[in-house]
Amino acid sequence: MTPPRADAVRNRARILDTAEQVLVEHGTTVSTEEIAKAAGVGIGTLFRHFPTKEELIRGVFEARLERLAADATRLATEGDPATALPAFLRQAVEQSEVKNALAGMLASAGVDVHELSGAPQRALREALGTLLHKAQQAGTVRRDLEVPELIGLLAGTSKAMEYAGDAAGRHRILAVVLDGLRAT
Amino acid sequence: MTPPRADAVRNRARILDTAEQVLVEHGTTVSTEEIAKAAGVGIGTLFRHFPTKEELIRGVFEARLERLAADATRLATEGDPATALPAFLRQAVEQSEVKNALAGMLASAGVDVHELSGAPQRALREALGTLLHKAQQAGTVRRDLEVPELIGLLAGTSKAMEYAGDAAGRHRILAVVLDGLRAT
Repeated sequence: MTPPRADAVRNRARILDTAEQVLVEHGTTVSTEEIAKAAGVGIGTLFRHFPTKEELIRGVFEARLERLAADATRLATEGDPATALPAFLRQAVEQSEVKNALAGMLASAGVDVHELSGAPQRALREALGTLLHKAQQAGTVRRDLEVPELIGLLAGTSKAMEYAGDAAGRHRILAVVLDGLRAT
Repeated sequence: MTPPRADAVRNRARILDTAEQVLVEHGTTVSTEEIAKAAGVGIGTLFRHFPTKEELIRGVFEARLERLAADATRLATEGDPATALPAFLRQAVEQSEVKNALAGMLASAGVDVHELSGAPQRALREALGTLLHKAQQAGTVRRDLEVPELIGLLAGTSKAMEYAGDAAGRHRILAVVLDGLRAT
């Protein structure tokens, strides 16, 4: 198999970026034609990459999960062990509104997001394990915590954010969880 | 309107209790006949109280929410101000698996649980406000927290529990949130 041409890769990335913005702003009623136009590509180009709208939404969701996994991996290898985990959680939770909205669109289309994206989910899990272990070694996160609970707290804090009235409320929710994670 | 006869009230309560157990154990595929049999009432009695299975599930969900609101109200008026809020959160989160399962059954039947149960939800919200205020006065919960965030943390912690591998993991998740709620 020959590698994809550089402009095909660029087009795909541009379609995904634009689709995410448009979908989050306008929901799934927006047409694929409008997304192609906003991305500055022809509708034929969009359909070559994503033959159906469901595949496009799935591509957007998976791209976001890949970015999240890449951020976690970068922080796990290069970040300050004492602060990288809280930094990642803060960032992941702040981005969760978009991720949850995309997951909701997929669920409405009958796609179970838990059955998607095996590779980025595994990468994310592995990076979270490294982040947690390093933070525990550095003494900044309680030693009794394990990876499944950390993932639960990430998902739960994202869920909690939906109830906050404003940015100050979201900040307070995050503060509760980050304070609770500290070494006792 | 004459008040319902005592045995009708008893039957209704018995049907709801049994239905909750049976539904949580076996899911919505269980027949209404089986629920009536398990509750020790005739099918006609069950249908008089709940003409459809959806109404029965809705009744079970609302009864659980009413109990939760009653527990919160009791703790808010009679509990130790310093410990009543953590005690309620612990209890509510531990019961959340059943509540979430029932909410999932209703969602599958096309019922939006957010549009249900106005009265118990208002009572719960009010009791949470009292519990929070008293704990803050007693100096055991951080002063910056407000009711919407508390409700978010309750929902989020319940969500987080789904990821824990076992009871010890659920205990650790709860410990993170309860420690984070403490006055700083």
